[in-house]
Amino acid sequence: MALELISSSKSFGGFQKIFKHSSKETGCSMTFAAYIPPQVAAAADGDTSKKFPVLYWLSGLTCTEKNFIEKSGFQRFAAEAGIVVIGPDTSPRGCNIEGEEDAYDFGTGAGFYVDATEEKWKKNYRMYSYVTKELPVVVAANFPVDPSRQSIFGHSAGGHGALICFLKNPGQYRSVSAFAPISNPSVAPWGIKAFTGYLGSNQDAWKQYDATHLIGQYTGEKVEILIDQGGADDNKANQLLPQNFEEAAKIAGHPLRYRDQEGYDHGYYFVASFIGDHFKHHAKFLA
Amino acid sequence: MALELISSSKSFGGFQKIFKHSSKETGCSMTFAAYIPPQVAAAADGDTSKKFPVLYWLSGLTCTEKNFIEKSGFQRFAAEAGIVVIGPDTSPRGCNIEGEEDAYDFGTGAGFYVDATEEKWKKNYRMYSYVTKELPVVVAANFPVDPSRQSIFGHSAGGHGALICFLKNPGQYRSVSAFAPISNPSVAPWGIKAFTGYLGSNQDAWKQYDATHLIGQYTGEKVEILIDQGGADDNKANQLLPQNFEEAAKIAGHPLRYRDQEGYDHGYYFVASFIGDHFKHHAKFLA
Repeated sequence: MALELISSSKSFGGFQKIFKHSSKETGCSMTFAAYIPPQVAAAADGDTSKKFPVLYWLSGLTCTEKNFIEKSGFQRFAAEAGIVVIGPDTSPRGCNIEGEEDAYDFGTGAGFYVDATEEKWKKNYRMYSYVTKELPVVVAANFPVDPSRQSIFGHSAGGHGALICFLKNPGQYRSVSAFAPISNPSVAPWGIKAFTGYLGSNQDAWKQYDATHLIGQYTGEKVEILIDQGGADDNKANQLLPQNFEEAAKIAGHPLRYRDQEGYDHGYYFVASFIGDHFKHHAKFLA
Repeated sequence: MALELISSSKSFGGFQKIFKHSSKETGCSMTFAAYIPPQVAAAADGDTSKKFPVLYWLSGLTCTEKNFIEKSGFQRFAAEAGIVVIGPDTSPRGCNIEGEEDAYDFGTGAGFYVDATEEKWKKNYRMYSYVTKELPVVVAANFPVDPSRQSIFGHSAGGHGALICFLKNPGQYRSVSAFAPISNPSVAPWGIKAFTGYLGSNQDAWKQYDATHLIGQYTGEKVEILIDQGGADDNKANQLLPQNFEEAAKIAGHPLRYRDQEGYDHGYYFVASFIGDHFKHHAKFLA
């Protein structure tokens, strides 16, 4: 579990770092970003037993670990709240799987946070287990975080990832939120392509990774989910289908704060505009 | 002066836009970013004669108009203050000048905000006149700005640009600030290379574009200059030389608020950490 430091820059009194490590789940070297808020250094001067809450960010298609840390401006809020923020890359890279580089929405940069079962992908494309099992262990071993206080959020395919990681693991995450998540991938083109490729054609297997299906089966504490969706997002009606998730949450009696943000598109200007609200949401549960 | 809209995204209630236009000064097509704060749309519903202050941002080496708008998070503060923010590209592009693409610190992406006099560059590399003369006219013709309320700031080579534009044009800009500016380019490797290339070997010509020289000649109102410099910036001692500018300001009796920000490097995490303070600085003068 040795980490290699790739870069470190002071940001809002803390440090935005990028690390690389050898992953057992994906069978390759993975990078992740870690924001260490100023409170960590301050605590290290005195009480070394102090542990901090940790918030996982999952990015969307085509992203690496860099998009969120460079474009969302989240560090301002992580620094204020004293939260460690971890953002993994979105897929294995350089595994020499035929076709891994062929599309923006499948393979490299598009792990979709599932554990692949199809022969060609199943050795490396295990982003679900990487994010929910291996990465938290690596993080707890290397940073002063309190594993009982972790939450998760993400954007687009990463919003899908955040919702399924939360819904499939009652108790592991205290809260969840998403920006423009792929809410019902089993019936949307991006999701159908990814799930067919990674999981095969049996659609029952797809349901295990579909938030709109999973929310009806969720057995944990019904903490309110926050979702922001850009009203001018070109992908909304075709790929993201927030209304399907909203409907399923209603049927399941799961509290959902769904906000349609008029005029906003799918990009990081949208994320940056509301990232502060998402920190407020999680800080309530992580306190 | 027709503008072509390249992109528009809602951001903090306003719109981050990018435009392209044909420039007379540079003899090519130039792009610039324009943030239109929410107050503009709100005013347009009622009093169409309302004019807004405008703040020009100049970026550094290798940048286009995108780095600042994607990475600094400035829109939050421009939206709060109701300031239009304009950020031009850093050089002409695609002029087919031999060698224009050969280096990161000269030619494309490195206009250095001077008007070239050397034969090879003088037709296109007129970023000083573009920024101080042509662009303000284009902006005033296309956006509801008040030309009597404009200020300027920038980063690195763009910090150099902001300082010289302010110091060479008393009364044109109400205030100036800079992040890690190239403060004394005549005696620093980046500046010597650029000035030799654009202006030739006569060092008297260089002084006209050197803030450390210009501040002693400045005849305008002595408004306080704000400079933030990262203490862990690798370029500080060799390329940026803030201490030379500090010394010259002292001799000139020009008020300077110079802040050495411990531990920060030269990148956008540093800019993002203090961009709010720079908006506060300019808002005082633009009110």
